Order: sequence, then structure tokens, then C-alpha cells
Amino acid sequence: MIIVMQAAAGRPELDAVVARVEQLGLRPHVIVGTERTVVAVVGDERDAAGSGVETLPGVAAVMPILAPYKVASREVQTEPTVVRAGPMVVGGSTIGVIAGPCSVESREQILAAARAVKAAGATGLRGGAFKPRTSPYAFQGLKQQGLELLAEARAETGLAIVTEVVAPEDVPLVARFADVLQVGARNMQNYRLLEAVGGTDRPVLLKRGPAATVEELLLAAEYILNAGNRAVMLCERGIRTFEAHTRFTLPLATVPWLHARTHLPVVVDPSHGTGHAALVPSLAAASVAAGADGLIIEVHPDPRTAASDGGQSLDFAAFARTMDTCRRVAAAVDRSIG
Amino acid sequence: MIIVMQAAAGRPELDAVVARVEQLGLRPHVIVGTERTVVAVVGDERDAAGSGVETLPGVAAVMPILAPYKVASREVQTEPTVVRAGPMVVGGSTIGVIAGPCSVESREQILAAARAVKAAGATGLRGGAFKPRTSPYAFQGLKQQGLELLAEARAETGLAIVTEVVAPEDVPLVARFADVLQVGARNMQNYRLLEAVGGTDRPVLLKRGPAATVEELLLAAEYILNAGNRAVMLCERGIRTFEAHTRFTLPLATVPWLHARTHLPVVVDPSHGTGHAALVPSLAAASVAAGADGLIIEVHPDPRTAASDGGQSLDFAAFARTMDTCRRVAAAVDRSIG
Amino acid sequence: MIIVMQAAAGRPELDAVVARVEQLGLRPHVIVGTERTVVAVVGDERDAAGSGVETLPGVAAVMPILAPYKVASREVQTEPTVVRAGPMVVGGSTIGVIAGPCSVESREQILAAARAVKAAGATGLRGGAFKPRTSPYAFQGLKQQGLELLAEARAETGLAIVTEVVAPEDVPLVARFADVLQVGARNMQNYRLLEAVGGTDRPVLLKRGPAATVEELLLAAEYILNAGNRAVMLCERGIRTFEAHTRFTLPLATVPWLHARTHLPVVVDPSHGTGHAALVPSLAAASVAAGADGLIIEVHPDPRTAASDGGQSLDFAAFARTMDTCRRVAAAVDRSIG
Amino acid sequence: MIIVMQAAAGRPELDAVVARVEQLGLRPHVIVGTERTVVAVVGDERDAAGSGVETLPGVAAVMPILAPYKVASREVQTEPTVVRAGPMVVGGSTIGVIAGPCSVESREQILAAARAVKAAGATGLRGGAFKPRTSPYAFQGLKQQGLELLAEARAETGLAIVTEVVAPEDVPLVARFADVLQVGARNMQNYRLLEAVGGTDRPVLLKRGPAATVEELLLAAEYILNAGNRAVMLCERGIRTFEAHTRFTLPLATVPWLHARTHLPVVVDPSHGTGHAALVPSLAAASVAAGADGLIIEVHPDPRTAASDGGQSLDFAAFARTMDTCRRVAAAVDRSIG
Repeated sequence: MIIVMQAAAGRPELDAVVARVEQLGLRPHVIVGTERTVVAVVGDERDAAGSGVETLPGVAAVMPILAPYKVASREVQTEPTVVRAGPMVVGGSTIGVIAGPCSVESREQILAAARAVKAAGATGLRGGAFKPRTSPYAFQGLKQQGLELLAEARAETGLAIVTEVVAPEDVPLVARFADVLQVGARNMQNYRLLEAVGGTDRPVLLKRGPAATVEELLLAAEYILNAGNRAVMLCERGIRTFEAHTRFTLPLATVPWLHARTHLPVVVDPSHGTGHAALVPSLAAASVAAGADGLIIEVHPDPRTAASDGGQSLDFAAFARTMDTCRRVAAAVDRSIG
Repeated sequence: MIIVMQAAAGRPELDAVVARVEQLGLRPHVIVGTERTVVAVVGDERDAAGSGVETLPGVAAVMPILAPYKVASREVQTEPTVVRAGPMVVGGSTIGVIAGPCSVESREQILAAARAVKAAGATGLRGGAFKPRTSPYAFQGLKQQGLELLAEARAETGLAIVTEVVAPEDVPLVARFADVLQVGARNMQNYRLLEAVGGTDRPVLLKRGPAATVEELLLAAEYILNAGNRAVMLCERGIRTFEAHTRFTLPLATVPWLHARTHLPVVVDPSHGTGHAALVPSLAAASVAAGADGLIIEVHPDPRTAASDGGQSLDFAAFARTMDTCRRVAAAVDRSIG
Repeated sequence: MIIVMQAAAGRPELDAVVARVEQLGLRPHVIVGTERTVVAVVGDERDAAGSGVETLPGVAAVMPILAPYKVASREVQTEPTVVRAGPMVVGGSTIGVIAGPCSVESREQILAAARAVKAAGATGLRGGAFKPRTSPYAFQGLKQQGLELLAEARAETGLAIVTEVVAPEDVPLVARFADVLQVGARNMQNYRLLEAVGGTDRPVLLKRGPAATVEELLLAAEYILNAGNRAVMLCERGIRTFEAHTRFTLPLATVPWLHARTHLPVVVDPSHGTGHAALVPSLAAASVAAGADGLIIEVHPDPRTAASDGGQSLDFAAFARTMDTCRRVAAAVDRSIG
Repeated sequence: MIIVMQAAAGRPELDAVVARVEQLGLRPHVIVGTERTVVAVVGDERDAAGSGVETLPGVAAVMPILAPYKVASREVQTEPTVVRAGPMVVGGSTIGVIAGPCSVESREQILAAARAVKAAGATGLRGGAFKPRTSPYAFQGLKQQGLELLAEARAETGLAIVTEVVAPEDVPLVARFADVLQVGARNMQNYRLLEAVGGTDRPVLLKRGPAATVEELLLAAEYILNAGNRAVMLCERGIRTFEAHTRFTLPLATVPWLHARTHLPVVVDPSHGTGHAALVPSLAAASVAAGADGLIIEVHPDPRTAASDGGQSLDFAAFARTMDTCRRVAAAVDRSIG
């Protein structure tokens, strides 16, 4: 932690800052500059979070030095974490692709989707049974029936089932059917839910909230890791910006930035990240080129009749073409899909 | 709903769109323009949400006409909702002020804060017992003990207790102690929680998520209203933007915009909205001038030792001065505080 | 400047950083922390801007300590700058109000506007003669004829003329007619233009660009100040965020933040800041309560027929009511208008 | 244009809207819905820009139907524009790569850079001679001497010279030396400059402003196209968002979105788009996978000593490796570099 004093601050203010730092069990180093004095603080500043140093008289700014996350950090574990669920491998040299409809709508729909995405090379099947919806008037999912249909699709195809859990009390039920528990973007900072999925032995796909910084994403992962579950996949699915021509803005620089700081694998969601089926194939390929360890893509037998997110879902043919391109791009960056 | 066809779309695409609209139980009106054809759709388009019309061949864009919320709308109830809890009145000609520390830390702290904010004119006491924290390493609140201390402060001062509830399973406990249930910004789209507070008879203070649009805020309120609870206060507490000199960016235009569209009262939080105690007094006064029906302000006996949010908390003297200014500004816009 | 080393950095990397700092004429202080080593650099780090220290092997981050602006800083001049132009006073205890149409359209229009805004208490008249327009198909202004009409309005009413200059080569012409030169938001980083207006004896109204940080705004002001012109007014007119219900998002925390760091007065533009006439009165009052030294408001004899920005222009009656409210709010914060 | 009436609007308001539309020379179609009445307007609504219809009593909203740009539109020219300058081809099946230092610093530096980037496969050489800098205290470029050094580099290597022009009065000078005129992000809406480069026979590289929408980028291009210059390359270089770990946020969905709407080629700048050399290689590859027609990358003989932007510049070895990867990715999406 670096404490920058105001230009007008005098000796008494500096002494008070030094005293407060020592009281926190940290060691202060005072450096008198040409225009400013700064106090460099040695020790684990995470212990000083919320200590109010920034409100002391004469303090202009406080700048943290240490990353606020620990277990997720590359400095703790240098080799990348590889997450496995059934046939799905996410991380290392392998890129896992999770595909399927936004919502499970019917037996026919989810089985058709499962067969098609498997044929095209996906190893995970997505499909929402519990749907958090912005509007109370929108379709909220088939719930347990949806989970049973997903299990039936797994029985037939062998695909790993990836589905969202929206509340701590649903975790046991969803974990009974699902291979991977998805925490949605709206719930990235629902700490009870993070702790609940952290208490299971299921891998977790943690989606970045649309206003979350990458540090906040890593701190949310830290909740799950701290609860004992080390199989966490981070998912970039787009942030909220002033851009209105896409549903969200998909910042692919997240991928190499996270790779440099965490051992956890990074999955990209070009469907929510763009909101338009026409943009998904290009962004899926770009995600692979950027180094993504996985993709999650919305695919529907007939996007025109989808109960949710039809506008951003690929049909089977478009998904198969997208997978072909992604396989070629993966080879170009020395990775493989599947 | 207005469906805009692509310039290159022909008769068959148009016919397919018309057929789909009729199949949804809505009535299409085709208008052939100089460069584009549009289909104006008559009927309750909320029934067509997620109907996938935007994915039909030849469709360039689909634009909704109706606001997606109903019960919250001024078109449903023209007179403003006034929320009351003990001595606190929020809405109409009266501005309610909720003040107190970020977290309940000790008996001394919360009682001292309660006395001071009451003396300065607040009618509500804030104080977090369950704290959702970005970092798992930060102080998470005193939980039930904190609620009991808040109840003690109410017994002494009469102030209405406003405190956050972070999970549906905590709602009965928190509702037993609190006068107003606060739903935090991170939980604005935690639909289970919205439904749970909607099932109580306690007024709810619903905070805007930092990436939520105002329409999404109103739809979140709609979940609570639909569950049967009509005493909802909306709270603007700042959004995430590129600005880094404030913790969030506080957009006060939200206040008159919401007033024109909803009957629900609007509270502003200048503490989280700026993140710096030095900026809070000016923004509190500005919120009143903008038409806010309430303020929620962090006040701490000694911000330098606060367990959380010390940097944005006012001390007692600064809060008293801020209240004086706000009272004068309220009078200037024909409102009163208290 | 604080240089944070990577956890994995060793002695050779540290030595290279120290050597580079010394080569830049600055003094390094090495502080070995529990997890990280940092190098605190003493000296005028502005001389090291772009020195590439952040690219040295082993460097994790470089954090500046000093504000990058000098002449605009409160540390250089503690008393606030008051800008005067004819009857208009901006700063100190007085709030100046500049009002008028977006564009000068005709003799009748600008004279009617001038009379009305003067009657309501404005001391400055705005009106665009050179209009930078997003679309090449939109009205671009009356140019010199517009300037002549503004001068005629001044001759009759005595109001100070505030009008935009869009290119360095136009500065002599515009300065011949105008009392205040406005640099528009699109031109905030048009450095040739900043230098050109800095070379005149006319006060300058410098608008914040919609993606500019407050530091960048102060650095743009610094270009003008450095060219010799000390009469600079900063103008907050809204930033680009994800919010779509307003044209821009108006962050009033800018006002007290700037007042703490610069002696230059701060003007707020609630017309561009909201984009909707219905929101302007509330935000004008809020700006005054937040401490603004001036307001700039679009007023048009008949907004429905305006050649530009009709949707955000007040008519005469609405402007007069807004001024009444602002006067009362100004008194409540111990300021006066006019 | 679709005009949505307020629910409370009556017959007189509707009649006034219809009358105004007819007065603008457009044809109104009134559609009475279940909750709202809308007026669909037929005719070239670009003629009605700024007509103030949105301010008429009873109007809730006005939604444009037509894209505001014309000449840049795919509907006007379906085949893609291919821009050529010396050996550089941007568009069609060929991806052009422009590389070189942020600023021209010396003869040795620019010649070394030119040789290295040519050897690695670039066809264009970038290098700033006129530098727009945020701070007046930063290096502002070698100006004409820089242009002469660029010309010398071209004489030796044959590379096309791409350099920024910052003011209309500099256009003749820069056009005498440069093969491609770059309009920087800060100048995207400097209309005099757009018209000036539009009056030359040099291809133009037009950078997106960090707060500009894609529609505003196309309208800026429209200024150049309208001035007679059809060789315009659009450049995505990142937008301003709340993300602070990258200099800007690079939204690659821009590439396929623009390709669907304009015939102009799209270049991506991963150097400014990320601001960190470590992120550039991944984002360069991702840009190619997303369909970019060109790349512009900062490369410096010794980034640690660069006069500007050292932190985001690749050294020669990193650039050569990046080009190898990009070539492989280009082949994977059926394109080639060079």
C-alpha cells in the first residue's frame, strides 16, 4: 500500500499516518519527494482493507500494491488448472465447447440440440432449467423437469451437462443432475450462492457480471475456491458499455490478461457477448485465437421459435460451420478442440 | 413492436413475418416506405418477448413500443406512492433521510450514530448486519447480533431501521427486526430475493445495480410489486462508467426521469454514488434539488476506524452541516425534510 | 512514481529498473515488502512520461503520484479564478447563466431569445454560428452571418456573447465578434485549437469530451493556460455511459472534485447532459446545489421548429421558471445568480 | 421514423403530430394500438433530422428507421472496397499490416523499424511526425523532419507510409510525404480535418473515437467520402469503458458488424486497444480471426526507451512471432497477409 500525502500536509498529519500504519501491524517507509511525501507500507495490506487510512487528514490517495485475490493467483499455482467433466476438458492444450439452447423447452428440442452439437464436436451441453429473467413476465424455465430432460440427453449422448443454478437452496437438486454448475452473470456477487457451489464436488462455470472488473471476477472465484472447490472456470460474457449495436461489449483482452494472473481456465460466451447470431461465428473464432480455453455458444433447433434468446442462437448448420472454423483457428494457435 | 425489414427483403420474407406476427395473436400493419418496409404490430407485445421475430430472414431490427413494466408505471397509478415506516416518510412533499454507518460494529458505535443522526434530522437509521463483500477476506457483518443492536437503537431513538437482507432464507429473521428491507445493488436481479421481500409487509429499499438500466430497475421493482408488496422505494446509488475519480458515477437525471414514469419514490445514495466523504455534502444537496424523495447517507462516529467504507462516511459534524444545507435546498424546491 | 516489481522478479531486474530511473535523472528508493518489492521514485516524474519503465523486465505496474497538470492546479493558485465578460461573472460567489438557442437561425430568433433570457436573468447569450454536426447532412450553421446577428443581439441587450469556434483558422474571426470562445466537446483534444484560443484575450469555455477523464480535461485546460490565456472556464456536459434514456450521463460529482483540485470555475450544461427538455430544470437546480459556478442552457423561442437540438431546448416560460428555482437554490447554498 | 404517442395523448395532440409530419413533406400512417398510438412516417427522414417532432405535446418517443449514413452503406455499394497504397492491400482476401513506432524519433530508429517490420511481413510503416498528446508537457513529434525520415524509410524499403495529420492546414505537407493519411481518434469528429483529407487523393485511415458509436464512425467516414475521397479505411482502436486493466476496451464485434453494413475495410489496432505489449499478440490474432482487413501495430527497436507508448510497443522478435501466428490464423479463415 502506498499512501500519498497532500502537498499541503505537514509533519503532524504525516506522524498520524505513520502511527496508524504501525497500529495496523504494518511497517511504514516515509519517502520525501520534490512535491509530495509518500508512505510505502510493508506487510499484508489485505489486513488493512477498510482501515480508513484514506480518511486521515492530509492523505491525498491510497494505492494498493498487492492483488486482492490469493488462491486464484498464478503466484500460488503456476501450472494452469484443467477442468474435466465427462468428455469435456477445459484448459491446457484442449478447448472445450459447451453448446445448446438458452432454455430447455421440450424433450424433442433438447435431444435434437444434444445430438447436433455433439455431432459438430461439442463436449458439453448447455440448457437452462432455472432461468433468471429480467422481466417477471418472461418464461422462467421448466425447473426440475428441465433437469431431467438434460439428464436424458446426457444418457443418450454422453455430453457433460452445464446448467445454471440461481439460488443456494437449489444447489443440491441441480448438482444431482448437472455435471457443471453455472453461476450466471447476475449472480456473480451472490456470495451465499458462491459458497454453496463451492461446497459441492461439481466444477463451476462462473460468469463475469456485466459491470464487474476482472479483479472482482477473481474475488468471486476466490469465494468458491475458499469453500474447497478448486474446479472453477471463469467465463467472459461481455460488459456493459455505451455500445448499443451489440447486447454487451465482449472484451477479449480479458483472456490473456487472466492467463497471466490466474491458473484458472477462461471460457468465452460469444452469444451473450454479442447478442446477435450473425456476429457469433466471427467472435467464436476470435475467442479461440485470443487463447480461450473454452467456448459456450447458444444453439437451437429453430431459433425463430426459441422461448428465449432466439436472436443470438445459431441453428445447427451455422454451429457446424462455426466449429469447423474454430478447429482450424485452434490448430493455428497450437490448440485443439474436443 | 415495430419490425423493420432489410432494404433487400422481398415479398416472401415480408409474408413470413406477417404470418409469424398473426401466429403470436398480434395484428400486423405493413407500411411500405421509400427505402424500407416496416411492420407495425398491434397487441400486447410483452406476450411476444423472446419470440424470435428478430431472427426471421429479411428482418433488420425489431423495436419495442411499450414499456416492459406495468404495475410500477405512472400509467397504472398516477398519484405518487408515499412510503412510511415509523417516523420516516418518503415521497410526496416530504424527503426522508436515512443515515448511519455502513456496518453495525458495536453497541456504542450504533447507539452513538443513532443519536447523532436523529439529532441532525434523520428519520431512518441505516446499518449493515449482513454485509455482502467483494472480497472473502473482508468483514462480513455481525449478523443477528447486529440486528439486535439496531433494534436497541430503535427502542431508544424511535428511528426506522433500514438494513440489508442478502438471501431469501434470511428474510424472516431480518423482517423481524427491521422496518425497511434493503436489497443491495449486487442483488438487484436476485429474483428469489425480490420475491421473498415481496412476500413481506415491510417496505423495501431497492438499490439500482451498477450496470442496470433504469428499465431493468423498474422490472426488478415489478417482481416485488407482483409478489404483493406495494411499498417499494427505488434507490439510485451510481453506475459503473469509465470515471475512476469517483467510486461510481451518480446520474441524478434518474430522479426526474423515474418520476415521469413511475409512482414509486426515488431515494439517492450520495455515499456510494461518489465514494468520497468530501463529495457527499454537495451531492446530497444536488439530489434534493433534483427532486429526490429520500437520501441514504453513511455516517460514522469515527470514519478513520470504520470496519468498512470509512472513506465515504461523514462524521457527525459534517452530517449535521449537510442536513442544514439540504433543509435549505429542500425549501427552495418546495419540499421539506423529516 | 511508484514502480511495483513482479513477485517473481529477481535482483538483476531490480538493478535494471534502478539504473533506468537514475538515468532519467530521478532518485529511486527500493522498499522490500513481504510479497513484493517496490521502487519509489523521487523527482519530477512528468519528465519521465513515456519513458517506458513499465516495459522493463520484472515490472508489474507503474503508478504515478503527481497530478499531470500544473498551472490549473489549486496547489499553484489557491484562490478561485473568477471569469468576467461584460455583465457576466462566473466564479466566486456569483453564478453566471449563459442561455440561448443551439444555433443562430435568424435575426428574429436570436433577438427574441436574447431578450427573453436577459429578462429571466441570464448574463450570457449562447448561439452557434459554426456548428460541428455528427452528420454531414445536418444544418452546419450561418457562420459569419450568425456572428453578426449575435453582435446585434449584444448591442441591444448587453449580454456577453458565447459561441463556438471549431478550427484554429476561425479564431480571429470569431474572437472579433464573441466575448467568450467556446471549445466544443468534440474538440477538447484538438490541440491546435486549444493553442489558438490560448493566444487570444477572450475567456474560453472548454467543454469536457464525452469520453474524457477529469484529468484529461485539466490537461486540455493546461494547453490554453500555457499559451497565456488564464480566463478558462471548465464545462461539464455529460459523459458517454451505457445509459440510453439520457443523451449523456451528467456526473455532478465533477463539480466539487474539480473545485478541490483547480482554481478554474466550473460551468454545467444540463441541456446536453440530459438531452431532454423535461429533465433540464431539475438538473439545472441540482447543478447549482452541487456548487456550479455557471450554467449553460439551451433556450429557443419555439423548440418544435429548432434547426438543431429542439428536443433539449427550453421555451421561454420553462426557462424563466427554471431560473426562479435556481435563484432560490443558489441562495440556499449562499450563492447568487447574475 | 416511428413516432410513439403517450398513453394519455388525445386527438388534438395526434392531429398536431400528423400536421407537422405533413409539413415536413413526409407521409404519416396512424396506427391505433391496444395501449399506444404510433405514427409511422414514410419518406426520407434524414430531411427531418432536428425537426423537433420529439418535443410536440403528447409524443413519448421518436425512433429512426433509416441508417443515417448513405455513401458508406453496403446498400449503396455491395462489393467491398479494397484500399491500395504501394505494396499495401487492405480488404478483399488480403490483410494489410501496418507496423512501426508510435513516434518517429531518429533516423536510426525509423530505418531499423522499417527494415524489421518489412522483414516480418508488414506492407505499411507507421510512425508519428505530428503527435497529438494529452499533456502539453509530452513529446510532440519531429514534425516535417519526421516526415522526411519516413520518406527515406520508404525509399529504402518500399513500405507504404501511414502517418497522422492533426490539422487541416497540415494536410498538403503531410500528403506530400505520406501514402496514407491517418486521422486520429481525438480528431474523428474534427470535421474541417475530415473535409481536408477528403479533398486529397491519399487513402485515409480513420480511427474510431473512444466514445464514438459505430454509427458516428460511419458518419465521420461519410464526411470524407462526400468530399470525394473513396479510399477510406475504418479503424477500431478501442473504446472507453469502466475497465481499467487495459488502456481501452477493444470490441472486436465491430468488425463483423461493420462488414455487414459498409463496404469500407476495417483495420484493428491492438496496441492502443489494449495498451500493454503482453496483450497485443493474442489480440492481433483474434482480430484476424474476427475478420479484420488490416492491423496496425506499434513496434519499436527498444520499447524501454521509446519517446511515447513504450508500454504497448512490441520489440522486433515479438512482432515477428505475432506475424507468424497471424499468418496461420489468416489461413484458417481463408485470408492471407501481405
